[in-house]
Amino acid sequence: MTVAPKLYWEDFSKGGVAEYGPRLVTRDEIVAFAAEFDPQSFHLDEDAARASMFGGLVASGWHSCSLLMRIIADGFVVNSSSMGSPGVDEVKWLAPVRPGDRLCVRATVLETRASRTRPEMGLVDFLFEMFNQARVPVLTLTTTSMFGRRTQGAAPAVVTGAEVP
Amino acid sequence: MTVAPKLYWEDFSKGGVAEYGPRLVTRDEIVAFAAEFDPQSFHLDEDAARASMFGGLVASGWHSCSLLMRIIADGFVVNSSSMGSPGVDEVKWLAPVRPGDRLCVRATVLETRASRTRPEMGLVDFLFEMFNQARVPVLTLTTTSMFGRRTQGAAPAVVTGAEVP
Repeated sequence: MTVAPKLYWEDFSKGGVAEYGPRLVTRDEIVAFAAEFDPQSFHLDEDAARASMFGGLVASGWHSCSLLMRIIADGFVVNSSSMGSPGVDEVKWLAPVRPGDRLCVRATVLETRASRTRPEMGLVDFLFEMFNQARVPVLTLTTTSMFGRRTQGAAPAVVTGAEVP
Repeated sequence: MTVAPKLYWEDFSKGGVAEYGPRLVTRDEIVAFAAEFDPQSFHLDEDAARASMFGGLVASGWHSCSLLMRIIADGFVVNSSSMGSPGVDEVKWLAPVRPGDRLCVRATVLETRASRTRPEMGLVDFLFEMFNQARVPVLTLTTTSMFGRRTQGAAPAVVTGAEVP
């Protein structure tokens, strides 16, 4: 058995692309998530969903985001020096996620930057695209992730005002 | 018992503000969400979280988003003509959500627009701000929601190119 080496900020390079998954989504998962977090009828009830504009049960958009997170967590995040994220720039729910879908995520590194204030940390801007089994894009999001550095960077510059990390 | 009237697109006005919640978040919920969707150690394991930069267990950012969804679902979305959302413009995870937090959501209507292509539908741009019991903002997001109209609008204009709904 080969264990992948743990990923640090230095291991991400602009233009790098990787793909993770697939992950099967079941009807029961879609309904359970909806019951807990997003009880709109087209996420929760098959009859109501059939009569809706969606024509059948669809996953909550937040369920789609959470599934993307799980796919990349298994793909690389858990095996990294992840320090979390300050947020997401844009989420697009492009197509419904339905029971039986098999989802893959393509991760593209848009940019990497050292932190200007925290020498132990670096930033990586990602585009994540999630596709179903028909290769239809169902979700895209762009986000910044913070990772620990393998080798500490230069001492922080003098900071004169508010700034992002 | 008074039942609130169902909300349609016409019921949202620019500048309108409403607040929903509070919702208690438990340790068990935080760990269960992390185990299913975001198994990073600072979301999942109290000892590891204590040793991390967070100093203790914190909810996954996607759990925070999902809790916001549940608070607004109970607050008004389920009792509306909601037709879903094309996406989110920006999510900011401003402060950790921790076990025992009581979360409220303030909804502000930034803009309302008729759909140019679907006379049965209107659009509402929202700012959602989630606060904890100390009134610290933990999450903000801006998003567009689609709602059915009480009264159908004018016939769609002739569309000559790709456009948002």
